[in-house]
Amino acid sequence: MFETTLIRLLHSATAMVLGLAGLAAVAAFSAPPASAQMAHSAGATFNGTGETSIPEGFREWVFIGAPLTPHGLNDGAAGFPEFHHVYIEPAAYEVYKKTGEFSEGTTIVKELVLLHEGDYEDGSRDEASGRGYFAKTFAGIDMMVKDSKRFPEGKGWGFFNFGHHEPPYADKASAQPVENCSGCHEANATYDMVFTKFYPILGKQ
Amino acid sequence: MFETTLIRLLHSATAMVLGLAGLAAVAAFSAPPASAQMAHSAGATFNGTGETSIPEGFREWVFIGAPLTPHGLNDGAAGFPEFHHVYIEPAAYEVYKKTGEFSEGTTIVKELVLLHEGDYEDGSRDEASGRGYFAKTFAGIDMMVKDSKRFPEGKGWGFFNFGHHEPPYADKASAQPVENCSGCHEANATYDMVFTKFYPILGKQ
Repeated sequence: MFETTLIRLLHSATAMVLGLAGLAAVAAFSAPPASAQMAHSAGATFNGTGETSIPEGFREWVFIGAPLTPHGLNDGAAGFPEFHHVYIEPAAYEVYKKTGEFSEGTTIVKELVLLHEGDYEDGSRDEASGRGYFAKTFAGIDMMVKDSKRFPEGKGWGFFNFGHHEPPYADKASAQPVENCSGCHEANATYDMVFTKFYPILGKQ
Repeated sequence: MFETTLIRLLHSATAMVLGLAGLAAVAAFSAPPASAQMAHSAGATFNGTGETSIPEGFREWVFIGAPLTPHGLNDGAAGFPEFHHVYIEPAAYEVYKKTGEFSEGTTIVKELVLLHEGDYEDGSRDEASGRGYFAKTFAGIDMMVKDSKRFPEGKGWGFFNFGHHEPPYADKASAQPVENCSGCHEANATYDMVFTKFYPILGKQ
């Protein structure tokens, strides 16, 4: 009887081993896609006074577009000089691809980038690929974060400015007053406060 | 004695269970970084006749820059109309961050994007953020792949054109003759055939 018990116990131990290993394997293979994994640790977070920081690694997020408002076409003082490199946090993009919606927590970073010096008054220059505009120097960070409970007055989005100047940028920022950013987004943006018409990857012209 | 044996066996079974679970956990946490995982399945590959395809998911690669050569500044016929959205394959970017070099296999994709219609002859238009240029429609794919054995005549890089038109793009492409692409890159690019001076993230002006 002892031997029978022993054999049974060994069988159940083996089953446990295989079972646990199987569970671990399933866990490994059913982990979120790589882009989602990256995002969960990288989206905007807030401290107790509502400040947030520039998310680490945002330049490796999903690029959505690069509107260009050169100084040369804006009386030497563009509001957003000059390229706007715009990125969406990868987990939010995964949700957007499935639903067409910006989910709660969606973080979009816009980095401003100054141009190589122009050959012409409009700020453009001649390069091997043609006459045009070519990025040179990082020069500012704006960010928008969807959090409907936190930012009801901004149609669910908070807007942040970490400085319009070369790095280093500000460590922290509080949400901007509605009149500084969200008013213009509300009046002019294509879909849910985002200028999707400039970002063909988002499929909402 | 049977009971002692039983207890020992149970102990070793428990140790095995914990050990296997531990190994599985280590395996999960020591996996390559997310960006590298994405890249290894996504870089350019070649068939027996040297053709390659557009890598899946390239729009989620690491964005490096968006030079702009508008039709309006190039007699209505820019060579690369109009935004050039340029992406580097993430595993190659990880290596570049560490070494400052483009490793063998580095794949860089350039997607051309046409502009929203201009309000002015230069192709620019007025938008809420200022006068400038705003992307609208995907319109072409060029790609360069570093493979020194395969492309010695292109200074180690092969150049591919999948059509300069709206999607769908060509399924496959063979390397372009040297005079079509690599000659110009060799004469004008900043570093190792790449126009790094237009891509501030690469840190080589």
